[in-house]
Amino acid sequence: MTATIEFWFDFASTYSYPAAMRMEAEAHARGVMVEWRPFLLGPVFGAQGMKDSPFNLFPTKGQYMIRDLQRICAELDLPFMLPTPFPQNSLLCARIATALEGAPRQRFTQAAYSLEFGEGRAISDPLNAAEALRRAGLDTAIVEKAQEESVKMALRASTDEAMQKGVFGAPSFLTPDGELFWGNDRLEAALDWAVKHAK
Amino acid sequence: MTATIEFWFDFASTYSYPAAMRMEAEAHARGVMVEWRPFLLGPVFGAQGMKDSPFNLFPTKGQYMIRDLQRICAELDLPFMLPTPFPQNSLLCARIATALEGAPRQRFTQAAYSLEFGEGRAISDPLNAAEALRRAGLDTAIVEKAQEESVKMALRASTDEAMQKGVFGAPSFLTPDGELFWGNDRLEAALDWAVKHAK
Repeated sequence: MTATIEFWFDFASTYSYPAAMRMEAEAHARGVMVEWRPFLLGPVFGAQGMKDSPFNLFPTKGQYMIRDLQRICAELDLPFMLPTPFPQNSLLCARIATALEGAPRQRFTQAAYSLEFGEGRAISDPLNAAEALRRAGLDTAIVEKAQEESVKMALRASTDEAMQKGVFGAPSFLTPDGELFWGNDRLEAALDWAVKHAK
Repeated sequence: MTATIEFWFDFASTYSYPAAMRMEAEAHARGVMVEWRPFLLGPVFGAQGMKDSPFNLFPTKGQYMIRDLQRICAELDLPFMLPTPFPQNSLLCARIATALEGAPRQRFTQAAYSLEFGEGRAISDPLNAAEALRRAGLDTAIVEKAQEESVKMALRASTDEAMQKGVFGAPSFLTPDGELFWGNDRLEAALDWAVKHAK
């Protein structure tokens, strides 16, 4: 009886940053296995009729989000700096994460989020994506490999799967019995649910 | 040195329901004085270019919100039933709450939220508003009094004040040093901030 959870994230998503940085400790404390699932929010927002980040479409909410994240990251002792432009184009990093699996995917994801929201660097830049791979102890040749057709198709399939499963934002957490939890705030509740309903 | 906080709520707001029901216990545990501030979300959403509840404008989010609230209320042992139509027109109850002060305002607010989201009843109906007053141990004649011009103007002024202070949704919590916290999820963080920064 092993509890598992899917962790859906987009590299442009601000609240996915603290979720990605604290996920393993929280999951480990509860004995939950995490499947890290990169996807693209763009098509998901597009299907809801939004052509930009909700934080740009609703500026007062965007301003608040920045202050909220400053407080959340301060509490977690995580550095926070918004990259320019915001949101970042997350396609390259999503492809790289898709080309990886297991622990390497997790390490790259955390390194990329740290660069983007801890240091405010542009993760759409292949040099920064390579830097994230290096910090994760991985081969920087993966930047090239991530442009292969099979990787592009796998990422598209993941984004379709996210939508089919009702994911409408990031971070999202999905348990095997189909419960969806949205937002960094729901990380603990999602893991607790996964443990309680593990088969 | 008394810590205080403003609690901004709209009677149509689903997440304001659990916030209103648990506010006093959480505030009391920390010695924080709460000012209950009714306002109208309609003009606030309108200023952001939204002509309906975000939960209706973005149906996948709306569906999720219902499930999320079911889980939150189950955890708190609170009944939950969405009223029809959703969202409810909150004008009448907002005026009644504005016409009241202090403990009576709080008791009426909790009674109205219980009717609306605990029993799924239409709080725009004056009979149900009167029922909430009765349950709060208050005079039902206040339903009439709430239609006076002075009350309407006070509510309009409150809604303007909310927007001036950066409130863009409900529930919202504001500390005397100007920190804004949004959402039932932020209730504890807001109270903790109020205590830490009390003068």
